Amino acid sequence: MSEPTSPTKGERALIARIGRELAPPGVAANAIHASAVPFGDDMASLAPRVSDLLWTSDMLMDGVDFESDRHSWRDIGQKAMAVNLSDCAAMAASPIGALLSVALCNEISSDNALDLFRGCRDCAAEFGCAIMGGDTNSWDRPTVISITVAARLDDNLPAVRRDGARVGDRVYVSGPTGGSILGRHLTPQPRIEPARALNRAFRPHAMIDISDGLALDLWRVCEASGCGAVVQEAALDAVIHADAHELAKRTGRPAREHALYDGEDFELIVVLAPEVAEDDAVAAGLLPLGEITADKTLQLRQSADAIAPLEIRGWEHFRG
Amino acid sequence: MSEPTSPTKGERALIARIGRELAPPGVAANAIHASAVPFGDDMASLAPRVSDLLWTSDMLMDGVDFESDRHSWRDIGQKAMAVNLSDCAAMAASPIGALLSVALCNEISSDNALDLFRGCRDCAAEFGCAIMGGDTNSWDRPTVISITVAARLDDNLPAVRRDGARVGDRVYVSGPTGGSILGRHLTPQPRIEPARALNRAFRPHAMIDISDGLALDLWRVCEASGCGAVVQEAALDAVIHADAHELAKRTGRPAREHALYDGEDFELIVVLAPEVAEDDAVAAGLLPLGEITADKTLQLRQSADAIAPLEIRGWEHFRG
Repeated sequence: MSEPTSPTKGERALIARIGRELAPPGVAANAIHASAVPFGDDMASLAPRVSDLLWTSDMLMDGVDFESDRHSWRDIGQKAMAVNLSDCAAMAASPIGALLSVALCNEISSDNALDLFRGCRDCAAEFGCAIMGGDTNSWDRPTVISITVAARLDDNLPAVRRDGARVGDRVYVSGPTGGSILGRHLTPQPRIEPARALNRAFRPHAMIDISDGLALDLWRVCEASGCGAVVQEAALDAVIHADAHELAKRTGRPAREHALYDGEDFELIVVLAPEVAEDDAVAAGLLPLGEITADKTLQLRQSADAIAPLEIRGWEHFRG
Repeated sequence: MSEPTSPTKGERALIARIGRELAPPGVAANAIHASAVPFGDDMASLAPRVSDLLWTSDMLMDGVDFESDRHSWRDIGQKAMAVNLSDCAAMAASPIGALLSVALCNEISSDNALDLFRGCRDCAAEFGCAIMGGDTNSWDRPTVISITVAARLDDNLPAVRRDGARVGDRVYVSGPTGGSILGRHLTPQPRIEPARALNRAFRPHAMIDISDGLALDLWRVCEASGCGAVVQEAALDAVIHADAHELAKRTGRPAREHALYDGEDFELIVVLAPEVAEDDAVAAGLLPLGEITADKTLQLRQSADAIAPLEIRGWEHFRG
């Protein structure tokens, strides 16, 4: 029997509180459009005056993407929003608004639920993004969070897709990777401003954020673009995060593997035309990694005449 | 420990299949905008050339909003999409695109999962709405579905909000209510075209779709508008759905109560200026119900001099 949840008094009160928490004075939606819809109506107004909008949606589940018995609800909210904002960065788009839907576990206190919303709100606000609405539910199962973010491209700039890599293009990353599980994974920093700057300066051929690991996400770019990539061993060693070295000590596995296969770095893989001088890319904060090949594989070049296949797999569970 | 799910081979295959299922030939997004992003990229392009967009999000959970052991996955998908489209109707907006995120129970077969997506897709397509992306996850808990829909207003027409009711306005419904649990709740018919026609003809002061019951959703309009409403008893009796009469026989409760308090009708409550002749409203397919009052309560007028308070509550669990 299908039983729509009629909100209880407690739930309604919580939703009202959430509305007050999320709707900043003057309501963000109104700032965008004079005839905007107020917070809490059936739909939320989506910035109507911009010429190019994108939107993305990510769902996180307790026990899978976070663990509520180990992480604070504020951190969980922050992370749930950040993974969506990281998708905006991957397109070089600026977030403008979000819808936040939740199935809250009945065991969560109102204060915890509000902390979750506050974490989302604060993370969004840091990047100029307002929570414009959503859907609040509760049930007797683990909490599920689903966030949709709409974002705008800078004037006259295209979105940076993942399918534009061409043979001979250079591959860079926006920062070191690996070992995020030591703590960074809880406070991902969406690379929105760097991505926009890169788009203005270099018009990247392709871009993706690293959520499931450098190797797997680089492969996604290759797959979408119909090509492959070769990673230079020395370059790879230069992008290993200090956390990956630290984690390697505990796991006994090479730090390089953590850099390649750990997830949740939320750095960007950036593919630039070969005409972009490496010095300019480095000056813009990028770390060289390798180049795009016609051969539809991932490879590691160890020296001028030694090349080995790189395994294509995602995040694995290394624990010390 | 936070463990991002690296998609398994089976999951990746499923996602690829979903992509093929959902992206119609030529990809709907491309039809909207020449430089649109292809299906499966980090974000989905959201119709960039229209001047006014709205978006809405609804989450449905197995065991709460549907029961997968009783309902087919195609019906579940259809319903999940329909409740979102009903929100579009409530604003007089036409859906243009949707993002579909799921946490699929591991026990669901690929075929069942695809049926869920097909149900969503087919329901959306019926209303000119394309699924543009989303996020597919799996876990060992009951399935959760979260859909976000973007919609466009007709040229030069405002969204019909829920906060515009004024004292003296007339209250109508778009169809009879109650007893949807007998089967209609599985195949809700979003009232998008009627809503747009009403907006063109009458510029309603307020509108809402009935998801949690006529009384509770009418109260939501009143609350948002800072007013109350009085329902005419004879008018109420004329909006009782045949299913409500049928259900009343089984539950032993008055059919009128089912009409007032059953949920999931997805008809519209429409508030019109008193200047709109009732004959014109009726000719447009509306059923009169009552009028907006200054008194911030819901009341039932039984005769010229007899008036009683109407209880404000949502859907209750009446089973025969």
